[in-house]
Amino acid sequence: MLDEAIAEKLVIEKFSSTPNTFCIAAVGCSVGPNTFITKQNILEAMGRKYESKALASKLPEFQVFFNDHATNAFNTLFTTFPPKKCYFAAGVTGSFHSRLFPKSSLHIVHASYALHWLSKMPEEVQDKDSPTWNKGRIYYTRASGELANAYAAQFSKDMDNFLNFRATEIVVGGMILLVMTVIQDGLHRSQSAGGFLYDELGSSLMDMEHEALISEALINTFILHVYTTTMNEIARLVERNGCFNIERMKLTDPILNVEGPVDVQMCTMHIRAAVEGVLTKHFGSEIIDEIFTHFYQKAAKYPLIESKYKKRNLLFLALKRN
Amino acid sequence: MLDEAIAEKLVIEKFSSTPNTFCIAAVGCSVGPNTFITKQNILEAMGRKYESKALASKLPEFQVFFNDHATNAFNTLFTTFPPKKCYFAAGVTGSFHSRLFPKSSLHIVHASYALHWLSKMPEEVQDKDSPTWNKGRIYYTRASGELANAYAAQFSKDMDNFLNFRATEIVVGGMILLVMTVIQDGLHRSQSAGGFLYDELGSSLMDMEHEALISEALINTFILHVYTTTMNEIARLVERNGCFNIERMKLTDPILNVEGPVDVQMCTMHIRAAVEGVLTKHFGSEIIDEIFTHFYQKAAKYPLIESKYKKRNLLFLALKRN
Repeated sequence: MLDEAIAEKLVIEKFSSTPNTFCIAAVGCSVGPNTFITKQNILEAMGRKYESKALASKLPEFQVFFNDHATNAFNTLFTTFPPKKCYFAAGVTGSFHSRLFPKSSLHIVHASYALHWLSKMPEEVQDKDSPTWNKGRIYYTRASGELANAYAAQFSKDMDNFLNFRATEIVVGGMILLVMTVIQDGLHRSQSAGGFLYDELGSSLMDMEHEALISEALINTFILHVYTTTMNEIARLVERNGCFNIERMKLTDPILNVEGPVDVQMCTMHIRAAVEGVLTKHFGSEIIDEIFTHFYQKAAKYPLIESKYKKRNLLFLALKRN
Repeated sequence: MLDEAIAEKLVIEKFSSTPNTFCIAAVGCSVGPNTFITKQNILEAMGRKYESKALASKLPEFQVFFNDHATNAFNTLFTTFPPKKCYFAAGVTGSFHSRLFPKSSLHIVHASYALHWLSKMPEEVQDKDSPTWNKGRIYYTRASGELANAYAAQFSKDMDNFLNFRATEIVVGGMILLVMTVIQDGLHRSQSAGGFLYDELGSSLMDMEHEALISEALINTFILHVYTTTMNEIARLVERNGCFNIERMKLTDPILNVEGPVDVQMCTMHIRAAVEGVLTKHFGSEIIDEIFTHFYQKAAKYPLIESKYKKRNLLFLALKRN
């Protein structure tokens, strides 16, 4: 899909040829190897594009910016670059909910499994006197409609800011390529795989509170600031923002949606990879193994894990700067 | 001196204004705070320059690339950025003895206390049958003329490559700003402060061999690939290379050249900061404290430390891309 979007939708003749560098940014990239593989895919697609236009001799040099928070394991990223990478690499720290790059300095921005992270916990969630207070839950899927709306409102603000920041940084004709997990339009939020997993994680934390392993106060001050959007919702937000055209939008089955039963161990590693960072920050590193042991035991017993876990969907979205 | 060189020698009107980003690279930057302070100085000098030309409203955005080896403590660098930095920052890994940036993508390259690092140990030094074999020494200052020549030849090659790589990366009119320790022309190589310190360090290692703390074989395979140039030598190398004009060249006293006796403890920390990395790689981290304890004891007894240590000189060099 990356390849197609670049082949069919990117108009390279539009870009100024001086300086002759094509700049790609991977925002929220974490460490390799996934982010390296995608960058390689993008570069190969670019190579084919230049070849197809008989411009192979004019292939620009590529500079790839790997972005994530300053606490990301950048030294790991830097020491695991593919040995024969054909681009100049740079690491850039900071939240993608802020300006990260100079004006009109980028041609492609890529974000994979990143934009579901909200810039912050919705404020209403922290108000003990409000119906949106999320006592005893770490997520919004099983919570009140008000709370879900607070998450949606935060996501809407964050997406608008994200698009505005990237619009400043991306040249006219440049693209944003997004991969994100969404929930099918029409399904209730509790039906999303992410929601199901986070709910089970929250439930594991409550179990640990009952076992006096974690204090109630600590759980009540923890909220996963993650939101799962729908295809319609994100399309609406992009259109409302107005800086980008939607060039491609495609729902696809995740790679994990294979035949056979779900591997609960893999599913546990999967969610651990996603949220260990924020859990460690809040609960401390000593308790982390215990949290995921509890999660594993709970998930393994759950009769519906298979159907729920497989309900998630991946959205590929290609946007072009107006 | 940075400020003067930028004020008087940089012609900003020469640079294309699209994209409106001014790019600075700090090669061999290590971690802060020194590299941050210099970048701040350069940015302030740029601000004054635009103001002086009544172009303050056209001040470009700045992007600063911090470069060092992939094993440099980049996470430390990234988490200690000044809180109100007025530039977009990026980390770039790799040796400055190689291409690091896209063609014509930089306006200023800054290297402070970096270019004395050779790209590799001169090959002759490793040949046991050659008069250039440096048995029992880790440095060239007290060694044969042949060995000193091998170091000088390696430095000459390295400088030429460095200038060629940077010439590709820097736009016409862009500058290289260098700060490096040199030895005064006419003085013997053993008279340089660096040489003196490295010789004492080598002598400490030999003591440790006598005490059976380090094996002779390990010492014989260790050579500091560091070279101290002179003002005349580097001027000749820049002129021979031909890609850059020398715009400023000034010898200055190091800040350490103050009244009063040399603080041996400070001098020990100074050399440790410079070479702990390469020593650890070769001798292992367990022995490092011991090495510098030996060095300290030796240096403290040395009657000439004061006059020798103070003989070093700093060279500031401003080069402009033809």
